[in-house]
Amino acid sequence: MAVHDRITSLRNPTIKAVRALRDGRKRIKSGRMIVHGLREISRAVAAGVGFEYVFFCPSLMDEAGRRLFEELQSRGAPLIEVTPPIIEGLAFGDRAEAVVAVAGSPHRELKDFRPARPDEPPLIAVVEGVEKPGNLGAVIRSADGAGAGGVIAADLRTDLFNPNVIRASLGTVFSMPTAVASGEEVLAWLRDRGIVAYAARVDAEKEYWQADFTMPSAIVLGNEAEGLSRCWSGPGVEPVRLPMLGLADSLNVSAAAAILLYEARRQRSRGEANPPRPPLSRRRF
Amino acid sequence: MAVHDRITSLRNPTIKAVRALRDGRKRIKSGRMIVHGLREISRAVAAGVGFEYVFFCPSLMDEAGRRLFEELQSRGAPLIEVTPPIIEGLAFGDRAEAVVAVAGSPHRELKDFRPARPDEPPLIAVVEGVEKPGNLGAVIRSADGAGAGGVIAADLRTDLFNPNVIRASLGTVFSMPTAVASGEEVLAWLRDRGIVAYAARVDAEKEYWQADFTMPSAIVLGNEAEGLSRCWSGPGVEPVRLPMLGLADSLNVSAAAAILLYEARRQRSRGEANPPRPPLSRRRF
Repeated sequence: MAVHDRITSLRNPTIKAVRALRDGRKRIKSGRMIVHGLREISRAVAAGVGFEYVFFCPSLMDEAGRRLFEELQSRGAPLIEVTPPIIEGLAFGDRAEAVVAVAGSPHRELKDFRPARPDEPPLIAVVEGVEKPGNLGAVIRSADGAGAGGVIAADLRTDLFNPNVIRASLGTVFSMPTAVASGEEVLAWLRDRGIVAYAARVDAEKEYWQADFTMPSAIVLGNEAEGLSRCWSGPGVEPVRLPMLGLADSLNVSAAAAILLYEARRQRSRGEANPPRPPLSRRRF
Repeated sequence: MAVHDRITSLRNPTIKAVRALRDGRKRIKSGRMIVHGLREISRAVAAGVGFEYVFFCPSLMDEAGRRLFEELQSRGAPLIEVTPPIIEGLAFGDRAEAVVAVAGSPHRELKDFRPARPDEPPLIAVVEGVEKPGNLGAVIRSADGAGAGGVIAADLRTDLFNPNVIRASLGTVFSMPTAVASGEEVLAWLRDRGIVAYAARVDAEKEYWQADFTMPSAIVLGNEAEGLSRCWSGPGVEPVRLPMLGLADSLNVSAAAAILLYEARRQRSRGEANPPRPPLSRRRF
């Protein structure tokens, strides 16, 4: 191993400052994020995140950990070797990790939002009023799988780079185009670009599979307690319904997002919205 | 309020015994479950669960709590009034609840499993090797929404009536037909009944939307770390793939379940498997 810093005392001021970031309010105020997990840190590196500190504990590192370490070293990351009690004290929740990194939280504003996959009409997930970071992370993970162009959090009630968002997204929150804005701003942004807002509502007449997701599409989901706010109506907004055939009256927001995003992918992969029923005059024999 | 017992001491032996059930191993050994939450307790009552104890704390009850209390009272439930510190001590995790109930865990064996919705071909979710109770509960909630006939847990690594299964399922675990068995037993059960096991595999050739879920169908999902075990191959098993277009190589098991269960519902609602492409001779004009 090349030269790097080493900290052995829990009273070290850097360690104390990083430990304070486990408190959500302090973390948000400081504009920083904590990244745990080899996969998550790798994805942050691949997405161009520059770390302030990377704490590592050699005795806890396995083969994958050593490979990540070498990659970080070759990139000149600010590596700091620490003892097992120190790294345990840095980790968020009950995670035992060999590497914990700290970086400034990326700013993700709507004015800078550029959906990925410019080769197809935009497909964007919009989630409004999400409180649980695990739900937001799960939506981002499904959006990644479905090949969505981005995820916009309207009126977000947690931080986009909360440790549980990072974890539940498997680190795809770093690569996925994202933005945070108010519901009104998001709707205006979609309207300006001719993107249909398919708003999931329990009282919608149209079932979601009747919607045409081959259009430039946003899938818009509210939080479970309150549903979508009033702004999601009028031109450019099409309510769609997920049928509820059982006792519960709603799906988990991440389940609803997965269903709608993959329905969009299904329609786009087959090159069709609803099953093909061409007008008679266009049928060929 | 009518006559009921009242406990004011944390040292009461009943309270001590119920507090011990917060420990998973002790709870499983005792064959009991703890049910929190008004909605969850209501659904347990509606599903015919008979409680051993129902602890309630009048000062924490809102209007919905009082309605549930009256219903429980009218059914002759064994109600025990307790103080706020006692009910806090009974709750699992960090939940503040006005009512906490204890009952024997229902036995859910495969030999007794009867899918709901006998008016349509069976649609069953099978999840293998699930460790996280929240994931199992989320699958059950989506299965409830999609109108599935049941959920079978193969080689389950948690308890079916774990408090987090109950919570994540919103209590639908009580009404949903369920069973716990080994993977081999589940496959044999499906084969005996001519139910196709659509096994989600990352290397499957067929995309899931090419599968015919209007057939008697089981949607079979493995755990995220290991995938499905080897037994899921051979006659009666059809591998299907959820396209993964991003960086992550898998979906959360509950997202995958939601997508596949709702694709089945979509096909069944439209009375079609794949989009209708009738042979030329059968097209009518």
